[in-house]
Amino acid sequence: MGLIPKETKFFDLFESQTENAIKAAEFLRDSVKNNKFDDSCVKKIKEFEHEGDTINHEIIDKLNATFITPIDREDIHKLAGEIDDICDLINVISNRLHVYKIENPKDPYLEEFLANIVESATAVNHAVKNLKDIKRTRRILEYCIEINRLENAGDSLREKAITDLFEKEKDPVKIIKWKEIYEVAETVLDTCEHVAKTIEEILVKNG
Amino acid sequence: MGLIPKETKFFDLFESQTENAIKAAEFLRDSVKNNKFDDSCVKKIKEFEHEGDTINHEIIDKLNATFITPIDREDIHKLAGEIDDICDLINVISNRLHVYKIENPKDPYLEEFLANIVESATAVNHAVKNLKDIKRTRRILEYCIEINRLENAGDSLREKAITDLFEKEKDPVKIIKWKEIYEVAETVLDTCEHVAKTIEEILVKNG
Amino acid sequence: MGLIPKETKFFDLFESQTENAIKAAEFLRDSVKNNKFDDSCVKKIKEFEHEGDTINHEIIDKLNATFITPIDREDIHKLAGEIDDICDLINVISNRLHVYKIENPKDPYLEEFLANIVESATAVNHAVKNLKDIKRTRRILEYCIEINRLENAGDSLREKAITDLFEKEKDPVKIIKWKEIYEVAETVLDTCEHVAKTIEEILVKNG
Repeated sequence: MGLIPKETKFFDLFESQTENAIKAAEFLRDSVKNNKFDDSCVKKIKEFEHEGDTINHEIIDKLNATFITPIDREDIHKLAGEIDDICDLINVISNRLHVYKIENPKDPYLEEFLANIVESATAVNHAVKNLKDIKRTRRILEYCIEINRLENAGDSLREKAITDLFEKEKDPVKIIKWKEIYEVAETVLDTCEHVAKTIEEILVKNG
Repeated sequence: MGLIPKETKFFDLFESQTENAIKAAEFLRDSVKNNKFDDSCVKKIKEFEHEGDTINHEIIDKLNATFITPIDREDIHKLAGEIDDICDLINVISNRLHVYKIENPKDPYLEEFLANIVESATAVNHAVKNLKDIKRTRRILEYCIEINRLENAGDSLREKAITDLFEKEKDPVKIIKWKEIYEVAETVLDTCEHVAKTIEEILVKNG
Repeated sequence: MGLIPKETKFFDLFESQTENAIKAAEFLRDSVKNNKFDDSCVKKIKEFEHEGDTINHEIIDKLNATFITPIDREDIHKLAGEIDDICDLINVISNRLHVYKIENPKDPYLEEFLANIVESATAVNHAVKNLKDIKRTRRILEYCIEINRLENAGDSLREKAITDLFEKEKDPVKIIKWKEIYEVAETVLDTCEHVAKTIEEILVKNG
């Protein structure tokens, strides 16, 4: 027990938080691939989202109890909130499949989106892991670049998916449903990019 | 007249701002309950939104004229903007009812949303009132928890409302209209949660 | 070569960034007016968006290489990102016209939106130009007021456009397409207002 707080604890929590997001993304990716999306899937994803909330609150509680923080208090708060958004939005995709009663969600675009989301969440996990040693700026920035690349890929994918949807689908109600699912999927990649931007800002401040 | 600014003035303005939001929410709630939404209602809600803008500008002007602020300048600016968003979004609901020519808006989901919005705006009002004495952290945090609870309730309500809409409504144009109204209603609760988050951040900074 | 960094460089880059946004807006405005929107237009707007990204990255790189900044590092970062959003969203309009295969986009509402966007981007350009001399607060604030006015005009325009759309258009798929185009157009004006708010915050901090 020392007077100096165990500064690495925040980074460990960011790591758990991103691991939880990866697990949620992988579970949803596999459910869609297996073309089976029932109530038990909705429940499972909801549990990941809940676990993410719990870790987020742990971070805030820890912040309130810590005098000296390794990076700015506000940045820890912001980062935790944005990482939490990743898992929240994965839950929104799951929720839309449920609300729109899409029980057979297998769709090439949604599958590609979810593969990219798993990759991007993994890059976020690597970036926050390395944040422990802020001198690894170059390495961290490489993960941020990867996250940006996946966000750009998401933009193109959304474009292709929606072009195809309006061309092939004639039922306006189905257009409304799938348009929204693709849009939310793309937003998950945007949120990963928000995390990357916050990390870049932290590096700028501490650079 | 002293050299030290009357620091409590900002908190009084936050209080007026949130009271104004409550009044707007109550007025809209009652109009929907009474199933009567005409041009005079649109105008009335627009007036609340305008009053909200005025108070927001007063806060900014005061900020520019004040040397020592009770909490960080940026936080006052951010808080004022986010509280203003609450009233702005209530006006967006009103505006959508108007634009979509929904003159008989009585609907169980919209009614429940508006009851929750009144409650959440009231909790925001209580939280900013107590901010005057930052030592009341525990009490303020309880209001923030209440605001978060109402936001979660809003998520569930939106889910139920939209499930029902897609099941019962067959006209895609009506689906488009009501889907958006429910979504905006849920966004008001999100905005209250943004205020709660900013308040939490202020407590963290000053904790 | 002095030890003190050429502080005005950031403002020159903000100027280039906003000039690029104006050019993108003018190009899109003229294409819509001439009722011709083909693949070459999409490509041209995409190039402006890419140029905007490049300038944004230049600003970040410069920030990492500069020890003393004329205004807070975080504010430079935020401002660059928000100015970048203007051009990004102009590209989103272009992209939607493309994805929805609207080759003859001439429409009185969209034309008015684009005229307002050119005006607002021009006001943003004037505001950042004057930021070089932070003592010109009054002048800068006048541009911010102009940007806010155009955002309000955008709200009304959106209302009129969507009222008209739901009254005259009976095809739900066309309603979905044009509703989104008007909404994105309005969002460009919102983003200009975000820049104005950030500028106001910078003035508050440095006031």
